[in-house]
Amino acid sequence: MAEKIAILGSTGSIGSQALNIISGFPEQFAIEALVAGNNVEMLVKQARRFLPEIVVIGNKDHYSRLKTALEDISVKVYAGNEAVEQVVSSKSVDVVIAAIAGYSGLRSTIAAVKAGKKIALANKETLVVAGEIIEKLVSQTGSVIIPVDSEHSAILQCLTGESGNQVEHILLTASGGPFLNCPLNELHAIKPEQALKHPNWNMGNKVTVDSASLMNKGLEVIEAKWLFDIKPEQIKVVIHPQSIIHSFVYFTDGSVKAQLGTPDMRTPILYALTYPERLATNIPRLDLVKHNSLTFFEPDTGRFRNLSLAYAALAEGGNMPCIMNAANEVAVDAFLNAGIRFTQIPDIVEHAMQETEFAVSCDLDSLEITDKNARTNALNYINKLNNK
Amino acid sequence: MAEKIAILGSTGSIGSQALNIISGFPEQFAIEALVAGNNVEMLVKQARRFLPEIVVIGNKDHYSRLKTALEDISVKVYAGNEAVEQVVSSKSVDVVIAAIAGYSGLRSTIAAVKAGKKIALANKETLVVAGEIIEKLVSQTGSVIIPVDSEHSAILQCLTGESGNQVEHILLTASGGPFLNCPLNELHAIKPEQALKHPNWNMGNKVTVDSASLMNKGLEVIEAKWLFDIKPEQIKVVIHPQSIIHSFVYFTDGSVKAQLGTPDMRTPILYALTYPERLATNIPRLDLVKHNSLTFFEPDTGRFRNLSLAYAALAEGGNMPCIMNAANEVAVDAFLNAGIRFTQIPDIVEHAMQETEFAVSCDLDSLEITDKNARTNALNYINKLNNK
Repeated sequence: MAEKIAILGSTGSIGSQALNIISGFPEQFAIEALVAGNNVEMLVKQARRFLPEIVVIGNKDHYSRLKTALEDISVKVYAGNEAVEQVVSSKSVDVVIAAIAGYSGLRSTIAAVKAGKKIALANKETLVVAGEIIEKLVSQTGSVIIPVDSEHSAILQCLTGESGNQVEHILLTASGGPFLNCPLNELHAIKPEQALKHPNWNMGNKVTVDSASLMNKGLEVIEAKWLFDIKPEQIKVVIHPQSIIHSFVYFTDGSVKAQLGTPDMRTPILYALTYPERLATNIPRLDLVKHNSLTFFEPDTGRFRNLSLAYAALAEGGNMPCIMNAANEVAVDAFLNAGIRFTQIPDIVEHAMQETEFAVSCDLDSLEITDKNARTNALNYINKLNNK
Repeated sequence: MAEKIAILGSTGSIGSQALNIISGFPEQFAIEALVAGNNVEMLVKQARRFLPEIVVIGNKDHYSRLKTALEDISVKVYAGNEAVEQVVSSKSVDVVIAAIAGYSGLRSTIAAVKAGKKIALANKETLVVAGEIIEKLVSQTGSVIIPVDSEHSAILQCLTGESGNQVEHILLTASGGPFLNCPLNELHAIKPEQALKHPNWNMGNKVTVDSASLMNKGLEVIEAKWLFDIKPEQIKVVIHPQSIIHSFVYFTDGSVKAQLGTPDMRTPILYALTYPERLATNIPRLDLVKHNSLTFFEPDTGRFRNLSLAYAALAEGGNMPCIMNAANEVAVDAFLNAGIRFTQIPDIVEHAMQETEFAVSCDLDSLEITDKNARTNALNYINKLNNK
């Protein structure tokens, strides 16, 4: 019988690509619920095309517009965060694709974990902010979290059939983004539209800027710690500008495994749903003779300070990754919309990490407060920078 | 309890490297028997150092010299091919490392298969010549064959934990050898000492010349068919001059897995013994930043005609791979010792494939005759070439 799927963030980049690939397998997957935050227009289109049982719009203000637009088809329409949490917990959902970007995806992902669902996790902030809490919940509910990020999907594929205690370290690849070779003294003048042009991947705005600043890789380092239960010093990063090798696992015998492919998010999305099996697709195949040179470099942590900040936050533990993530979300938003320079993003993150109250142990409510405080500290600092 | 190991071809390149790596794990492995063809001096040294229960010299003429040299240590000394077959079949042997080069390794490997042993197979000619016969024997005796070739070890590692029916094709990497970029009109003047300088791997003479002529890759294509039970059209080859990625598996979902490492045969040797587990070693680790550019090219079948001949032999089936292998062994020997040009190797192989009687179905005795006839045809042709 087809697995019933709820997609959180269906109108985003991962959500749309998930619908694209899933719809090709009607015998394996049924779209049970589509959840979006604000994009009513696209949600309506998706509902008409994929005919889910349920649609939910996070922002309650859009409820009546959505309801009216879907009056003529048989679909239940809900609104608000409580509705999202109810839907992901409902018995009619087997699998949740958690693809709401940023901290705002945390509550719904946790609801899915609490309900013991299988989760295809595209929201890396969930594990960055609340990895320890989620790990405990997973062990209580039997929920299964499978990564959608191409790097973590690669690691998972390389670990399949291997004993965990034979892993020496993992090596995450990073494209280095559009500014890998930009002269350091020109970085401060980067415009948002330049940062939004990723050389290889087609992704949402937030993650594309994070890729350019390497904060995305920093978040992935922290995510990897929780997904694969390994020590911070076992997680390394290498710059690989072609984004063909998605990551490596080094084993204790000296052998290394890697997973590769054309940069197409549909492959890791589908793998997260079929793991440990695979389904045949017509996604373009990797032509190594076309991509005939794969290169590798040490990450330049002078250029990419965010990566060092992420390792520091991971080493610190407690609520520090939550602080880092909140400040980064605010800083990226300010870069895209409020005149902050690209090179000021790590300044803002670092400032918030210094100024926000540190706590070793935290629950969801205290993380909520940490998140708010870190955002306030980041915003205050942004105002100071803007008024200079 | 330690697994008891017999090494066939212990004084060769694979045999010596096997002893090097195995001796580091006395709790896991015990050297039960060492078997060599002619190299008494080295066999004596190995026997004194590794203290096996049994040593066997294939060439009976060397028996008394070996016996005398080992008089003062407690080791049983035998000679001759019958003794080799008895040793590999004996109850005191758990695992056979089959590392006798060429057709002459066939009988002893088959004896190990018949005795239902676990076999770490470094003798690729066994499966090339008698793949069908071996496959049948394996299904009868429960023998397990695990490849030692770095390419097939890579494929095996990538397949671990995967369903076989989700493999689209495998892609074997080939270094291209020392003459990858040699101008075509200079290839005929290649000297044996040039062909024996492999750019990446430290191997025996026969396989090093085969690497330079790409016959080694042709033999591996045929070997892969039997090891992984896949169709000829599912086996592809790509030139990868750095020998860092040892091979790839393409899956039906568009994902690709690869196994990598420094070019060190001890890794695949040890993996064959521990599969599907691993043991920690201090073999030098792969430093991708040092090997910072990995490149890939289509094999030039004009330059490397042997590869096309191997695909043709595989398509033909029956005794054709046996003919090809026999003619190649004779041709390589003539190149190393009898003034045949490097570029004449494929001519000799092709001639023997045309002139030797083809048989669709064959048993071991008829293969013996095929092998002899192909060698005679190759030798006659070599004499003709030399008398021109």
